[in-house]
Amino acid sequence: MLSDVIAHYQQRVNKHLTSVLDNLPVTDPALKAAMSHGVLLGGKRVRPFLVYAVGEMLGVAEDKLDSCACAIECIHAYSLIHDDLPAMDDDELRRGQPTVHIAFDEATAILAGDALQSMAFEILSSDDHFTATQQLAMVKALAKASGYHGMCGGQALDMAATDKQIDLAQLTQLHRLKTGALIHCAVELAVIAASGDSHTQQRLGDYADAIGLAFQVQDDILDVTSSTEELGKPQGSDTKSNKSTYPRLLGLDGAKSTAQQLLQDALSALDDLPYNNQIIAEFARYIIERRV
Amino acid sequence: MLSDVIAHYQQRVNKHLTSVLDNLPVTDPALKAAMSHGVLLGGKRVRPFLVYAVGEMLGVAEDKLDSCACAIECIHAYSLIHDDLPAMDDDELRRGQPTVHIAFDEATAILAGDALQSMAFEILSSDDHFTATQQLAMVKALAKASGYHGMCGGQALDMAATDKQIDLAQLTQLHRLKTGALIHCAVELAVIAASGDSHTQQRLGDYADAIGLAFQVQDDILDVTSSTEELGKPQGSDTKSNKSTYPRLLGLDGAKSTAQQLLQDALSALDDLPYNNQIIAEFARYIIERRV
Repeated sequence: MLSDVIAHYQQRVNKHLTSVLDNLPVTDPALKAAMSHGVLLGGKRVRPFLVYAVGEMLGVAEDKLDSCACAIECIHAYSLIHDDLPAMDDDELRRGQPTVHIAFDEATAILAGDALQSMAFEILSSDDHFTATQQLAMVKALAKASGYHGMCGGQALDMAATDKQIDLAQLTQLHRLKTGALIHCAVELAVIAASGDSHTQQRLGDYADAIGLAFQVQDDILDVTSSTEELGKPQGSDTKSNKSTYPRLLGLDGAKSTAQQLLQDALSALDDLPYNNQIIAEFARYIIERRV
Repeated sequence: MLSDVIAHYQQRVNKHLTSVLDNLPVTDPALKAAMSHGVLLGGKRVRPFLVYAVGEMLGVAEDKLDSCACAIECIHAYSLIHDDLPAMDDDELRRGQPTVHIAFDEATAILAGDALQSMAFEILSSDDHFTATQQLAMVKALAKASGYHGMCGGQALDMAATDKQIDLAQLTQLHRLKTGALIHCAVELAVIAASGDSHTQQRLGDYADAIGLAFQVQDDILDVTSSTEELGKPQGSDTKSNKSTYPRLLGLDGAKSTAQQLLQDALSALDDLPYNNQIIAEFARYIIERRV
């Protein structure tokens, strides 16, 4: 079952991340603890899941994929630490626990994020399961997806859109950068690990782009339709914060049919490829059918 | 003359950094401008100087060294942007100009720093002057020098030492990480570019470690001996801020003789190697003889 596979990869990446962090020397106890706190807070581990599931589908053994999974999660974790800072989203809780700048302090949170970004590239460049050419391609993909052309650029667009109406094209661009780039990268790392050809790269990239956006559309839908209890955060918080969302721009039915269309795009990309895509097809369905 | 060589490399790296930043698409005007502001504020460009001067000494053409010089300066620039933030050193001016969070805002400064770190790794991994094995070694060296094991770790130790007396071993460790690691890395990148052997790597690493520390010792000495006007920042600011410094721990004469000893260590490392070391030997002398 999908949920078993998700749990398996979640445990696997958590175990490896824990070991990487535990193995840091204790030169800076607070910095080390803050990095661990940020990385090990939990979470769905969507990006590591995609690295493992796509990699295994393409025939790569899961132990070869640990570094890619850990590296991309270090980038995701650092971005959450920085996004939670008072100057950004100013969040004191994440997954029911104090955010890093609350559990430690702002300076330590900034440095923990910075050091986790460096660590991602250290992990990727230290793995000897792959050729230097593959490792270098992985570094390049992750650097591009993380920076101005990807996640940081998207977060800047998101900050700029606060209390402002943006149109559908702008909203889509924002999400494609802010969350889509790293989800695309997770799949790309797996394809590089498998030495996949350009057609495989293209269609799995299309799959990643579709589910990355679908994830965000579904988030916006759940904000309207779920109860606060189901959601674990205040229901309707998007509406209250005057944020541009898919339901607001397209209506609830419009947003739901966009999510369906993205699911179809994802599935048809998979159908173009000669692999047993059962797990990742099911994952695409889960993304737009989830209630939390 | 050394000053001509310094100016030449300074102009060279500035030209390349300007071109890298100008070539970013204008998806995020504020983020792009903040990144440029942080990188192009000026500065001695010590790290790029070392990449070029050591690389050329070892026979690498200067145009092959541009990426390494730009990448390491992106890391240095991002660290200054983050260090200047209110939660860290809270500085409003750097080199007579508003710091990034003053010229823009805190959120943009955090993101600009984050995106510059990613950019460093993108630049290094996109350069095709070298073999994949060399490029990967460069990425690994830069990632290690930037993160927990290097610059971020050192900055965390510095924050932890605020208003606290630390001993000489702790002060040295702090500076070896906070500024020394990246200076060491500049030389290491040049050695990798030249495919230098391990003896060359070792002795040039010793040179870098000695001048990196000497730079800091001289900074502390100048804080005591220079006028505010010469220094461009309030004279005696270390004493006022109750910071542990070399003159405070060793006395002024003790600090001066430490700087001399480090210079001798740097020069004797160079004398062990069969290269024309005139420029970088002169640079080592300049470091401890400079008045600003």
